[in-house]
Parts: sequence; C-alpha cells; structure tokens
Amino acid sequence: MVEQTAAVLDQYSIRMNDMLEWLSGYGADEQGGVTRLLYSREWIAAQEALSSYMKEQGLETFYDQAGNLTGRLVGSNPDLLPVVTGSHIDTVICGGKYDGTYGVVAGILALAYLQQVYGPPVRTIDVISLCEEEGSRFPLTYWGSGNIAGNYSMERIPAVSDREGITLEEAMSAAGFGPDSPYRSCLRSWDAYIELHIEQGFVLERSQQQIGIVNGIVGQRRIRVSVGGESNHAGTTPMGWRRDSLACAAEMITCIRHSALEMGDPLVATVGSIQPSPGVSNVIAGETIFTLDIRHLDRKVLDEYTDKLQQKLRKIASQEGMDMYWEENLNIDPVLMHPDIITDLQHICESSGIACRTMPSGAGHDAQVLGSQRPAAMIFVPSRQGISHNPLEYTADEDLMQGFRVLTEWLYQYAYRGECHETL
Amino acid sequence: MVEQTAAVLDQYSIRMNDMLEWLSGYGADEQGGVTRLLYSREWIAAQEALSSYMKEQGLETFYDQAGNLTGRLVGSNPDLLPVVTGSHIDTVICGGKYDGTYGVVAGILALAYLQQVYGPPVRTIDVISLCEEEGSRFPLTYWGSGNIAGNYSMERIPAVSDREGITLEEAMSAAGFGPDSPYRSCLRSWDAYIELHIEQGFVLERSQQQIGIVNGIVGQRRIRVSVGGESNHAGTTPMGWRRDSLACAAEMITCIRHSALEMGDPLVATVGSIQPSPGVSNVIAGETIFTLDIRHLDRKVLDEYTDKLQQKLRKIASQEGMDMYWEENLNIDPVLMHPDIITDLQHICESSGIACRTMPSGAGHDAQVLGSQRPAAMIFVPSRQGISHNPLEYTADEDLMQGFRVLTEWLYQYAYRGECHETL
Repeated sequence: MVEQTAAVLDQYSIRMNDMLEWLSGYGADEQGGVTRLLYSREWIAAQEALSSYMKEQGLETFYDQAGNLTGRLVGSNPDLLPVVTGSHIDTVICGGKYDGTYGVVAGILALAYLQQVYGPPVRTIDVISLCEEEGSRFPLTYWGSGNIAGNYSMERIPAVSDREGITLEEAMSAAGFGPDSPYRSCLRSWDAYIELHIEQGFVLERSQQQIGIVNGIVGQRRIRVSVGGESNHAGTTPMGWRRDSLACAAEMITCIRHSALEMGDPLVATVGSIQPSPGVSNVIAGETIFTLDIRHLDRKVLDEYTDKLQQKLRKIASQEGMDMYWEENLNIDPVLMHPDIITDLQHICESSGIACRTMPSGAGHDAQVLGSQRPAAMIFVPSRQGISHNPLEYTADEDLMQGFRVLTEWLYQYAYRGECHETL
Repeated sequence: MVEQTAAVLDQYSIRMNDMLEWLSGYGADEQGGVTRLLYSREWIAAQEALSSYMKEQGLETFYDQAGNLTGRLVGSNPDLLPVVTGSHIDTVICGGKYDGTYGVVAGILALAYLQQVYGPPVRTIDVISLCEEEGSRFPLTYWGSGNIAGNYSMERIPAVSDREGITLEEAMSAAGFGPDSPYRSCLRSWDAYIELHIEQGFVLERSQQQIGIVNGIVGQRRIRVSVGGESNHAGTTPMGWRRDSLACAAEMITCIRHSALEMGDPLVATVGSIQPSPGVSNVIAGETIFTLDIRHLDRKVLDEYTDKLQQKLRKIASQEGMDMYWEENLNIDPVLMHPDIITDLQHICESSGIACRTMPSGAGHDAQVLGSQRPAAMIFVPSRQGISHNPLEYTADEDLMQGFRVLTEWLYQYAYRGECHETL
C-alpha cells in the first residue's frame, strides 16, 4: 500500500474540498446549483483554471480539438501507453458540485500525491477533464469521450443546435476549439481508463458501504408503448362495455414491475411517463402512451427479458381487446468493466478494510464509451439519499477520501509497480 | 293511442330533419360541427329563429330574464299548472346537431302535431328552449334550468367569466337579458317536466333498442387522488428499493376497475387523467396524481362504494409505503325520475311494440335540475356509436321519430286526457 498517513490524507482532504468549492464557483447559479454547459463561458473558465492548477502540480497539459483537457505525469518508460483517469466538468442545468467534477479533481490530486511521494511513475499517468458527458446543452452525450473513442470526429461534426439555435460547431469554434484550432486531434492510444464518480443512487448509502466497484455499465432499451382502446363518455358507458386504454396500461405497468422484481437485480424496468388521451376526468381514455426504460448488465438477459415482457404486454392487450404498438427508440449495449481491474480494486478495498460492493452502474458514464475500446474501470462513492443532478447532491468528506485512496493505490500499483500490467 | 298514421308521421319526420338541419346553420363551424355558446350571436339568432317558428305554430312565446324561451300551447283548464317539455340549444365547442336541440325541436313539433290533430289541450303544454346546459362558455352548468329551479337568481349572478374575460352578467346584458331587461322573471310553478334527448352512450344501439326510459340521473363524485412516493434515478435504483408512485397508482387503477365491475351496473368508476411527476422516462415518479369519477343512481350505494374504495386504495398505498391524499371536488346527488311517468312511458312503448329499456342517465341533464323540484322524466333515443359532443353525433331518422312518438303520446295522455294526473 502507498503510505497514506493520516496527516497527508488530511491535507489532501482539505485540498479536495477547497477544489470542489472553488470549481463550483464557475457556473454557480441563482438556485444554489452549478450550471456549466459545454463551451459556455463558465465551462471555458473552469477548464482554463484546471489547466493552470495542473501546471502548478507539475503536470504537462494539453487540449485536443474537441476541448478535452489532459494533465500528464510523464512516466520513465516511454514504451508504455498512458493509463488515464478523470471524468467531466460539464453539468446539467442546476446540477451539483460532485457529478463528474469529483473524478477530475480527485484525479489531479492523485497525480499530485503520487508525484509528491514517489516522483515520476514508470508508466505515464494522464488525468483528463472530458469536454462533455451530460448532453445538457446539445442533444448528444459523450461528445468528449466519443471523440477519443472514435465515435465522433472533427470531420463529421453532428449538426445539432442548442436551445438558442447555436450549432455545436459554432459553439466549439467560439470556445477556441475545433478542426481549425491550434490543438492536436484526439488521443487514440491509451492503455486503460479508470473513473472515480459519485454513485448517483442510494445503494451504497443504504448498505453502509463506502466504495462501489463497478462491474459494468448497464445496457438500456427505451420503448414507447401505445395502447389503443375506445374513447367514451365516463358516465354513459357501462363498465363491462368499455375499452379503457388507461385501465389496460395500468395492468401493463403492474405486470412490468412484477416481472422485473421476479427477474431480480440488476434488472430495472421503469415507467416514468404516461399520457392518456384525451386525458379528461369524465372521458374514458381512447389511447394511452407510456414510456418503458429497461436496463441490465447482460445483453442476453436484457433482450430476453424485453422480448418476454413484450409478449406479456401483448397478451394483456389482446385479452382486453386493445391494440398495442411497441416502438423502440433507444438501444444501448452494456459495457463491462475490465475483470482484472475489478479484482485489483477488490483486493485494495479488502486489504485496506474498506466496506465495498461490486455493483453495476445503472447510469451512463464516459467509462462506457472509453471502455468500448480499451480496458476501463469505475469506482463509486456514496451519494447522500441517491440525489444527483441537483444542488442537494452531496458526498461526505470521508467517502470522498476513500475514493481518492482507492484510486491512488490502484494507480500506484499499476503505473509505478506494474503489478497488473501482464493481465491487461 | 294518438292517431299516428304513416303519412302524418312521414310529414313530421321531414319537418324534424329540416328543422335540425336548419338550426345547425346557426353556429356552423369550420370543423363541420356546431358551436353555439350561451349569449353568443349564433345562440341569440337561433333562439329568435325558434321563437318565430313557435309563433308560426300558433304558440304563445315569451322569454324570461335568463333567456329561457318558452312556447306555450294554452290549455282549457287554467287551474292546471303547465306540463313542460324541451331541452337546450347551447352546444359544446364543435358539438353535434342533436344534443339538446333534438329535445327542443321534437317538443315544438309535438305541440304543433297535437294542436293540428286535437286542438287545444286541457292542461297547458310548454315547450322550453333552456338558455344553458353545457357550461361551455362559462364555468357553470344549468344556468337556464337553475334559474327556474331557484338554484340561481338574478339577484346573485355568479361572478364568472368566459375565456375572453367577459362576465356572465355582461354577456347576458349584451344579449338583451338580465334583471334590467323587459322580460319577466323565471317561472317557478310548473307541473312536470319531460325531456327527450339523445342517449350520448351506446347502450341502446348495442342492445338494439330504440327508446331508453330514464329512471334517474346518476349522482357523481369526483376525486383527485395523489400518491406520494420517492423520485429516484431509473437506472441506479434497484427495483426492490423503490417507492414508485406511478406503479402504485397503476395498482390502484386496476383495483378501481375490478371493484366497479364487481359492484355491477349502473356503477361506473373512471380514471381518465393521470399525471406522474416529473413525468420523465428515466426518472421514477415521486408523485402521481389521477382523477377518479364515480357515478351511481343510488346515493347510498354511491357513498358506500366510494368509502370502501377509498379504504382499499389507502390499503394499497400503505402496503407500498406510499402517502395518499384524497381530495373530493365534486359531489352531486342522484335525481330519480318520477316513477309514475316511468310507468306511463313503459306502457306506451309496450302497447306500441317499441323495444325499450329502463336505464339511468350517466350524463347530467336539465331534467336533474328541474327534477329536484317537481316530477321529471327523460326519454332517450340511440346515439350512433355513443358519440356525442362531436360533429359525428348522429341518430337515425327512425329513432328520432320513435322518440317523437313516445313524447307526443305521453303529452296527449297527460295533457288532453288527464290519465296520469291523479298520480302526480
């Protein structure tokens, strides 16, 4: 283990808090949250501030054309590809201080710490502040990591616009990035990626564990289910003669929940939105549309469950004499985290006596984009009450520091001692 | 039975069709429907046209201060209070040709027919075009019949406005009515009221019956049910740890339907509107609000069912660890039609070989307002596919004429021969 004395850890805990507080000033909004949208003035200022801070820690820094900012701790062996940690600092509108930002801040501090105690590593370590994850300004997610992974490129910039009609290309160019900027094109060669992030759920908090070792980021299917019945007068139509689409949808929602509970974790199935038509208290709904969000870590299980569920819902519709339309509008593959890094992280937690659990991530992260190309891993710390994307987002100092310790330890074992190298 | 020869009936059938067509020109809208809102230019013109038509039929006519238009066939015995038939000619926005209008038109033609064949009656017969039933311009219903029944008065005109901010009082005054108009105040003395109306449901059509004899207008309770759970991320919150308000509401909706089916006709219970919050596909709904509309002919059954249902829903909420709020915002008493008139009408149908059923009205009508003061009755004719409040509203000529026949026969028996007088 690295020497994590109480005094040194206390010092880094203070720095972590200071940095999170300091960064939350970039984009502080009137609601007490942080609004730092891609390529906005606040976002540019925050990246610049981070760049300066990285330099002060003795890191080499560089942007790429998309606006991803890297801080580099150069290793002694130039033949080894860099190992990368980091996350993103863009936020949702009125978000919290921790989502993404924590992973960037903790990554910079981890490199500072390692350099302070051990000097340069064998393998180069990069900390990256990815230029977009949330998709809260433009209707696309993972623009930053997507450019690195090759999902996007400067040759084909998506023709999307923000709410004010500004295109992604215009905004990127105005921020000083893009194909005509002085920056180099995106990195395409790296060894592995490890991201420290808040859980954005309450599993760790409720199970009183401090670290979540992510075994994968769930695949996701989103479906729009439409139930077609017959709209009639709520007073003049006897119960037995109705074709009530909302009543039928209610049976379906119950079926969805029960079948998901039966399937067990990590499967989740959610109906979050429902719209009966005409949606008036004294009229039987002729058509009801609801959304269905299904997630699982295993592609096969996700698909089998979804297929069986569709059959069940069709049976309910048929029994009730209803029409049913099933329209899928999102289908994302699960991405597994690398099993060797998972094992490394489990060992680190065990030997440090940290209460941890191996768990899937139900939310999407840059690690799933980078993890589709190269080995990736994620470390979760608890989110108080599971709250995220909200000014009330909070993680206790002690938990922030446990995440920092596990990240630092793994980077030390990996980049200084090469302990895990053979397996990747 | 009155002498309803084929030739005479054919003649009245043509007149009925002509009149319905002619009236639908007052307020004909671009969608092919009729929009004739209270005190609008179209409504005033239609009442005036009806007034002229009534005079041509030899009826005395008069308005009251509210704008109700009466056509009177004066009886030979001035000691007998008038028997009244009629309905309303105001419509919903983009309504059909039959709702209300049919009862007014058939009433005028019934008086014309009786006078043509039998001369003046013993008891005075009034046909009334009530000045508002739908509540489609102002947020109040039964303004016309309510003034007659004493629920409203010119001394206390409700302070309501239409969508353009015009008050009821302003609109009434601009139309030439109101307390300062030359018209007399509303009639408060009448003997009985009988209203011919389209069913606005599909029970008669599907059961292949031509006449519905209404035994009562159902009471109605409207409740806003709010289910409070916990809003969480749809990806990061395991199924077993959720407090999903929409899933709980779905269980409740199923319970509502099943309990209503179990209770049997004429009870109906409808959830027509539901609003989960935040209502986003990837967020578990923290709160879900839905409407509940319950109707029954028997006050006691309506209340017992509603109370038991509330208990059941509270039990579901409790089992799911949810909060539930129950807010009633409408509670209308059932109004029974007069049993003797029901018997009269049943006899008329039987002796004429008309397929009829005795049935409740699930929708509200002026007959419930006037019926709260004096004996009332309603005759229904089939609505094609149960469609109403829509340009597609339609009743076949043959059915329109059966309604006319039954109404005319009852008025003849009642006002000419005094056959039912003793019992009322």
